[in-house]
Amino acid sequence: MREFVAARRGELLADLSEWVRIPSVSADPERSSDVQASAEWWAARLREAGFPTVEIWPTAGAPAVFAEWPSDDADAPTVVVYGHHDVQPVDPVELWESAPFEPFVRQGPHGEEIVGRGVIDDKGQVLYHVYGLAAHLATTGRTSPAVSLKLLVEGEEENGSPHFRQLLLDRRDRLGCDVVVVSDTGIFDRATPSVVVSMRGMVRARIDLTGPDGDLHSGQFGGAVPNPATVIARIVARLHDADGRVQLPGFYDKVVELTPQQRELVERLPFDEAAWLQTAQSRATYGEKGQTTLERIGARPTAEVNGIWGGYTGPGGKTIVPSEAHAHLSFRLVADQDPGDVGAQLEAFLGALRADGTIPDGIGLALTVDRPGVRPCSTPMDHPALGAVVRSMQKAFDTDEILFTREGGSGPEADLEELLGPVLFMGVLLPDDRIHAPNEKADVELLLKGAEAVAHLWADLGSTAV
Amino acid sequence: MREFVAARRGELLADLSEWVRIPSVSADPERSSDVQASAEWWAARLREAGFPTVEIWPTAGAPAVFAEWPSDDADAPTVVVYGHHDVQPVDPVELWESAPFEPFVRQGPHGEEIVGRGVIDDKGQVLYHVYGLAAHLATTGRTSPAVSLKLLVEGEEENGSPHFRQLLLDRRDRLGCDVVVVSDTGIFDRATPSVVVSMRGMVRARIDLTGPDGDLHSGQFGGAVPNPATVIARIVARLHDADGRVQLPGFYDKVVELTPQQRELVERLPFDEAAWLQTAQSRATYGEKGQTTLERIGARPTAEVNGIWGGYTGPGGKTIVPSEAHAHLSFRLVADQDPGDVGAQLEAFLGALRADGTIPDGIGLALTVDRPGVRPCSTPMDHPALGAVVRSMQKAFDTDEILFTREGGSGPEADLEELLGPVLFMGVLLPDDRIHAPNEKADVELLLKGAEAVAHLWADLGSTAV
Repeated sequence: MREFVAARRGELLADLSEWVRIPSVSADPERSSDVQASAEWWAARLREAGFPTVEIWPTAGAPAVFAEWPSDDADAPTVVVYGHHDVQPVDPVELWESAPFEPFVRQGPHGEEIVGRGVIDDKGQVLYHVYGLAAHLATTGRTSPAVSLKLLVEGEEENGSPHFRQLLLDRRDRLGCDVVVVSDTGIFDRATPSVVVSMRGMVRARIDLTGPDGDLHSGQFGGAVPNPATVIARIVARLHDADGRVQLPGFYDKVVELTPQQRELVERLPFDEAAWLQTAQSRATYGEKGQTTLERIGARPTAEVNGIWGGYTGPGGKTIVPSEAHAHLSFRLVADQDPGDVGAQLEAFLGALRADGTIPDGIGLALTVDRPGVRPCSTPMDHPALGAVVRSMQKAFDTDEILFTREGGSGPEADLEELLGPVLFMGVLLPDDRIHAPNEKADVELLLKGAEAVAHLWADLGSTAV
Repeated sequence: MREFVAARRGELLADLSEWVRIPSVSADPERSSDVQASAEWWAARLREAGFPTVEIWPTAGAPAVFAEWPSDDADAPTVVVYGHHDVQPVDPVELWESAPFEPFVRQGPHGEEIVGRGVIDDKGQVLYHVYGLAAHLATTGRTSPAVSLKLLVEGEEENGSPHFRQLLLDRRDRLGCDVVVVSDTGIFDRATPSVVVSMRGMVRARIDLTGPDGDLHSGQFGGAVPNPATVIARIVARLHDADGRVQLPGFYDKVVELTPQQRELVERLPFDEAAWLQTAQSRATYGEKGQTTLERIGARPTAEVNGIWGGYTGPGGKTIVPSEAHAHLSFRLVADQDPGDVGAQLEAFLGALRADGTIPDGIGLALTVDRPGVRPCSTPMDHPALGAVVRSMQKAFDTDEILFTREGGSGPEADLEELLGPVLFMGVLLPDDRIHAPNEKADVELLLKGAEAVAHLWADLGSTAV
């Protein structure tokens, strides 16, 4: 298996380079033909790989690519593999050491790496599935995979997947499966292969306050009318208590606390707080009392102010009572919180602040909650397919110890879980791969490990009752 | 007296129109030659009025005009009259019903009014001194005024008087006086002639917070690092207690509470809160508990957030932990607060928030305080010259009742008080004259009343021991 994959190292890099040269930036309307070209490139590559069914699925935005290769085994489980072929914008382009869409391979401190936009997020992680499948077929001597494979590679993930849920609903009849395997995440670090077992959900909200109809002179009126900038500050200040707990009524009601065993698994991760702080470029950690940093990120919900503004924000000063003030908020959610609950909780929270005078008469309030939000998503720890993923990673990484991590971010995986079935994560992204940033890179050895793990996974899942 | 002034109504309006046509906007560097032309126009008008000494005093910015007419009476008191010949910008110019620098006279709901930038703030109020002085000389048959008059009309008031204090220091030997009369304020309303007896002081400050070196992904890092936008909100929220009292340590130590008699004087003002709210375009009043709206504006100090900002402030949302957050603050001060104290009080306030964890580790803090700030300023209620001002207003307005008002704003009057002597206010501005706004206007009858009052004042002060 390893030899099979290693022998195709050059071919994989050539393929990846070709694909990365197509600048499929989904957030840039001027790149829409490139996103289309990227879908076509991937569809052609899948046909070349032998997939009997390959279709480009248009959406109201960018196209997804669907491919299917049924297993000849009657009782083989069906797996949907999820990834995306669009990439992040390249700004600030001046911080790239080379052209973002002219990938090249270089010797890095830990081995060869390939540099370019999308090499790991997510083209590299999608591409190794072709090599993993070929390895699976070659090493098992099969003519069809041991699982019925369905690949769904969307084209708008880096733009918030605005049409992905609708696509899943529209194509539900084609996407029936036993499990979903997501290839868009990573491992804890180079020395610690691991498997993601949860992602947080998210709800965004915005608060708009109005005070006087226009900015007022703070001499003529200051001290005698309510100031919306003061009130937005008081609202934000009340979002957490002194222990860092979110103060929306009922916010924690559905939070499933980690079991002692799950906490123990988190604690086994070789977390280096100093190194993490360096990555965060922060001088200190901060958060909910009684939780470690990894728990705060992966296993606890949050309320975060993403932006606050009101009044004069330029240089010097302007002695006004502002007419308006605003805040962008976002809430990260964990199992079993429901994003649909957060709007009502926010309304109750603000209603209480209105009642106690924190939001005084004379201040108008508008709350906008982005619906439906994103649900938290997690792999059931007792799901048999998780065992198969762990065993596959063990083989690919030559280790008995595969740890579990919890992602703080949120994504379309929640829709996959809700609409298709249990979600498993398998990915080889590294925390220092600079995704979404200049000089994105992929560790070439890890791309090969990804192909290996996938090859093991299909063989394993083919004989696992899921 | 009244006839003398009324006979010159047309001449006064022609003079004022000529002066207003010079767009002396001090805040606009491209208008600096106009500000110079305005100074020259006024200097010429003063020479024409018979002032034996008229000088244009350059500053590091726009020029002031100084004129002197000593009294022949050996024991006459010396008065410095203060005003300004520069005007506010005209933006938003599209809201003017006519060209701002093409003044015209029209019939308003309460009589004739003249419309144009600067007609009342402050060219009209400066100009009536020429007519008042002429009336004084004509009706008394004097060849010199009953007081030694010094007029100081600056050219940067609407730009914050940045060089005015230095001018006073440089020219102190020429500005010796017994009292200062400021002609840049107004009366309570058309039916309630009144005299300003205090102005608030002011200190501006800015708080800059830094968190992570760059904006962070709120999924990857949210909940585990300190968020400067949250912290700026907590700081601002702590500026006041639930009773609206400013929480800087020692802030109220030097505040002189109004005496029962002074409160009674404030209460005699026919304050119409509904009308005031309409002017403020605010739905409600709000402020320090136990104080009326007029007290909150005129007699109580404040802390006001003029601006707050941090993180993403555009449409939609961006799920970040912001790297920075900021606030512009301003504090209005009353007698006997010292603007020099506020910086240390702010430092102590922020130090306590640092100590109690409101400003956590990992948040960098920079405080900038604009020094020296502006001192509060007030007319001693027992000063004999205040009696003269009141009597002059009584005569001009044919009433026994002249009330006292307290201005919420702050200005160069505090420097006049500190460097020259007791300050008296005499002005005829109306609250609805739209100063600093489009369609600034002056009530023509009130400009004539101003001239009358000034004429009475010089006669009265000439026989008052000040």
